[in-house]
Amino acid sequence: MNKIFEPSDSILLNEIMRHRRDVRGNRFSDKKIPNDVIEQLLDAALLAPSVGYSQPWQFVVIEEESIKQKVYDSFCEQTEHAVNLFSDQKKQQYKKLKLEGIKEAPVNIAVFYQPSQSPVLGQTSMTEMGRFSVVCAIQNMWLMARALNVGIGWVSIVDPQKVKAAVNAPQDSELVGYLCVGYVNEFLDEPELKKMAWNKQKDKQDVVFKNKF
Amino acid sequence: MNKIFEPSDSILLNEIMRHRRDVRGNRFSDKKIPNDVIEQLLDAALLAPSVGYSQPWQFVVIEEESIKQKVYDSFCEQTEHAVNLFSDQKKQQYKKLKLEGIKEAPVNIAVFYQPSQSPVLGQTSMTEMGRFSVVCAIQNMWLMARALNVGIGWVSIVDPQKVKAAVNAPQDSELVGYLCVGYVNEFLDEPELKKMAWNKQKDKQDVVFKNKF
Repeated sequence: MNKIFEPSDSILLNEIMRHRRDVRGNRFSDKKIPNDVIEQLLDAALLAPSVGYSQPWQFVVIEEESIKQKVYDSFCEQTEHAVNLFSDQKKQQYKKLKLEGIKEAPVNIAVFYQPSQSPVLGQTSMTEMGRFSVVCAIQNMWLMARALNVGIGWVSIVDPQKVKAAVNAPQDSELVGYLCVGYVNEFLDEPELKKMAWNKQKDKQDVVFKNKF
Repeated sequence: MNKIFEPSDSILLNEIMRHRRDVRGNRFSDKKIPNDVIEQLLDAALLAPSVGYSQPWQFVVIEEESIKQKVYDSFCEQTEHAVNLFSDQKKQQYKKLKLEGIKEAPVNIAVFYQPSQSPVLGQTSMTEMGRFSVVCAIQNMWLMARALNVGIGWVSIVDPQKVKAAVNAPQDSELVGYLCVGYVNEFLDEPELKKMAWNKQKDKQDVVFKNKF
């Protein structure tokens, strides 16, 4: 009765995960994304787990240039502030990076968390759980995009209030992620920040513990 | 050069997402999980995106009964408090639910966020991004588990400080998720909280917006 997956299925899933990349504006092509691809991404999002089956997510699919421009302006403002937080050496590297594809990607998706008015089962001890459900939905979209040969880039260097204003979000909605979605001319074989040695890959044995730290 | 996935691949991914469930103690079997299955779950976690390539995750694989018991004790304490937050009608439903499988699952995995000492690229405007990266890792594990016909249940009705103490977590580490992992005698065809009408499934058109709310 229950679906049994085959060993080849988990191998394929690992491949999708391994080939998923954070895609920035220098990799997006301007090829239009068919509506049914966007629908498949949203369907994947809606299959995510949610605490207490609260489904506390909201998705705004953005194609209007004027909205993208407002978000891009916020990115520029926030970047100016951010760069100065880093050491002189990192600052030089930071300035060379293309960190978003807001205007290059044909579609942006702003993803919000809508808090519940009443108590949520499973969210009574760890209040973050609702936001975490929304993140699970984003990761589902990201993987589905890669399986459809579509790139997603998550832009977090924005002022959430500015993004909310740009899409008329209700006051209680909270921005969780701002995604740039489009076909790409290349998926890098490894994360760009790894390739350029911004950070090293951590060893598995340094982050996995047995019973206790 | 770039991996191109086939239409059948995205269909399979959708199936894995669709058959993934939150598994509780009444569904876990006591069949031992081979080490290589746990390693495949951890490998999936390590393929998750992370803000600024910070890889801010820590995983504690727990099999010791005494540690599980401490976490279970915290679940019981927190549940006593939680039940009272709900309406009388919900309270009766709540009390009938089996909401965790801490002791029934052969393996538990506690997943932590380790904040960085220095600024993290991409986390300067939205400070939650590091925790969100850890959630992406959990969702990767959850999907990989389903593809390996293994169940995961995410327990959030615990006191994070008690869980930290039980596994000797460093002071700055934050609990993001506590997972129960095991083979199952059944994956429900739909979320249990949907089946019992705790909450209704939301309509797609109620959570998806075009350009603006």
